[in-house]
Amino acid sequence: MKAIDKLINRIKELNNPTVIGLDPRYNLLPKCVLEKYPNTLEGISNAIIEYNKALIDETYDIIPAIKPQIAFYEMFGIDGMRAFEETCKYAKEKGMLVIADIKRSDIGTTAQAYSNAYLGKTKIGDKEVSIFDVDFVTVNPYMGIDSIKPFIDDCKKYDKGLFILVKTSNPSSGELQDIKLENGEEVYIKVTKLVKEWGNDLIGENGYSSIAAVVGATYPKQLEKIRKLAPSTYFLIPGYGAQGGKAEDIAFGFDKKRFRWDCKRFKKFNVCI
Amino acid sequence: MKAIDKLINRIKELNNPTVIGLDPRYNLLPKCVLEKYPNTLEGISNAIIEYNKALIDETYDIIPAIKPQIAFYEMFGIDGMRAFEETCKYAKEKGMLVIADIKRSDIGTTAQAYSNAYLGKTKIGDKEVSIFDVDFVTVNPYMGIDSIKPFIDDCKKYDKGLFILVKTSNPSSGELQDIKLENGEEVYIKVTKLVKEWGNDLIGENGYSSIAAVVGATYPKQLEKIRKLAPSTYFLIPGYGAQGGKAEDIAFGFDKKRFRWDCKRFKKFNVCI
Repeated sequence: MKAIDKLINRIKELNNPTVIGLDPRYNLLPKCVLEKYPNTLEGISNAIIEYNKALIDETYDIIPAIKPQIAFYEMFGIDGMRAFEETCKYAKEKGMLVIADIKRSDIGTTAQAYSNAYLGKTKIGDKEVSIFDVDFVTVNPYMGIDSIKPFIDDCKKYDKGLFILVKTSNPSSGELQDIKLENGEEVYIKVTKLVKEWGNDLIGENGYSSIAAVVGATYPKQLEKIRKLAPSTYFLIPGYGAQGGKAEDIAFGFDKKRFRWDCKRFKKFNVCI
Repeated sequence: MKAIDKLINRIKELNNPTVIGLDPRYNLLPKCVLEKYPNTLEGISNAIIEYNKALIDETYDIIPAIKPQIAFYEMFGIDGMRAFEETCKYAKEKGMLVIADIKRSDIGTTAQAYSNAYLGKTKIGDKEVSIFDVDFVTVNPYMGIDSIKPFIDDCKKYDKGLFILVKTSNPSSGELQDIKLENGEEVYIKVTKLVKEWGNDLIGENGYSSIAAVVGATYPKQLEKIRKLAPSTYFLIPGYGAQGGKAEDIAFGFDKKRFRWDCKRFKKFNVCI
C-alpha cells in the first residue's frame, strides 16, 4: 500500500489529521524525567527517549503519526541520533507512521545516500539493510529534480513518501519563495507545479500522491492558492499554534470534497488547548 | 581569527586551493582495508575511519581542508555518524580545516539546533559542549534569512563559516536556480545578492567574508557572473573532475587581482590526473 494511503487511512480511522512533533528541548523536559539521568550527552539522550516513549504511549491510539525534527537530536551528537532512531522505532512498533523532518537535499548520488539512510536500504556485502527506515521525509527542492529523484525512486520501490518544501512557515520564507518570476508566478507556485508533476506516478487509492508538500499554516492565502492548484497533493502544514497559525488558517489546506473536516471542531480545539 | 582567513592563509601556505572530498563509497574502499572488518554497519564504519585517516595522513601537508559529505556517513546510521565524527576530529588534529557538507536548512529555532551541532555548542546543565565542531558547513537558502541567521550568529561567536548554495553543480540545478524573476534577474543572482548582504559583517583580513558561496564548476558562465557581482564572497566550487567541470571552467571563480593563480598549472593538473 502506498505511504500516503497508509497515512490517510490511519487519519480516517482515528478521525484526526494532526501529527505530533517530537522536537525535544532539553530545558523543557519534565524534571521527574531529567533527574533520573546524568548531565551528559548520553544521559540527556536517554531522558529524551524516555519522554518520547511516554508521549507515544499516550497518543498512539489518537494521533496517526509522529514528526521528529532531526536537528534536535543531531545537536546531541551520536547519542542524540540514537535517541532519534529509538524514537522512530518505538513509534512504528506502536502503529504510528513516522515523518522524519530532515529537510535534506543534494546532487543525485548524495541524495541517493540520504534516501538509503531514511527511506531505502544500504547495501552491505550481499545484504541490504534498513537504517532509520521511516515512512516519509521532508526534502528541499532548491537543487531541482535530480536532487529529489532518488528519493522518489525509493518511494516507489519501498512504499514511502516525501513532503517537499513549497511554502515554509517561517517569517522570511518569502525572501526567496514569494518573489515573482518573469511569467508573473511566484517561486512557490513554480515549486508547487514541480511537486505536482513529480508526484503524478504515485497517486494512491485516496486520490493523493505519496509525493506531498510542506505548506505553512502561517500563510493562509498562499495555502489556498496551492490547494486549488494541486488538488492531488497532500499537505503537511506546520506553523499551527506557537508559530501563529490558527484553525481558520489551516482550513484552506483541507479538501472539503474528500474529507469534510468540521472546521468548527478545529476552532474549538484551538480554543481549548 | 575569522574562519575564512584561517582557510585562505592555509591555502596560501600550501599554495593549493583544493579540498579533499571524503565521501566514502563502501564498494570502492580498497580490499586490503575492507578485509580487516566484518560486513556489519560497525565494521564498515571502522573501515571508513581507517581509510579516511590514511587519506588524511597522506594529504594534510599538501591540502588545506577536507570536505566530508555527511550523507555517505548517515547511510550507515549511528555507526556511520561515528565515522563522520572521528574523521572530522582526526583532520583537525592534523591541522586541516573541516568543511562539513551537510546542506541543512530550517526555521529559526531548528536552524539554531543544527548550528549547535556543527558550529556552536549545545547546552547541558551549566556546561556548553561542542558536538561535531567543524570549521564550515554548507547550508541551503530556500527558507530565507531566518533559516541562515542562527548559523551566521554562531560564525561570529565561534569564528566559523558558511558556504551557502547559490548555483549548484548538478544537471537540474537550473530548474529553480536559473528561472528568471520579474526584474530580469535569475534566482541564483538574487541568492548571490542575499549571500553578499548576509556576509557584510564578517569580512576578514584577506578581503573575503566567512559567509561564502557554493558555485558549481559545471556552470562557468554563471560562475563568472557571480564572481563579478560578489568580489568579497569566497567560493567553494564542486563539480570539478567526475561531474565534468574542467580547469578552464573553474578559472572564472578565482580572483586574479588577489591571488594570481596560474591557470596553466591547473590545466596541466587536470590533464595529469
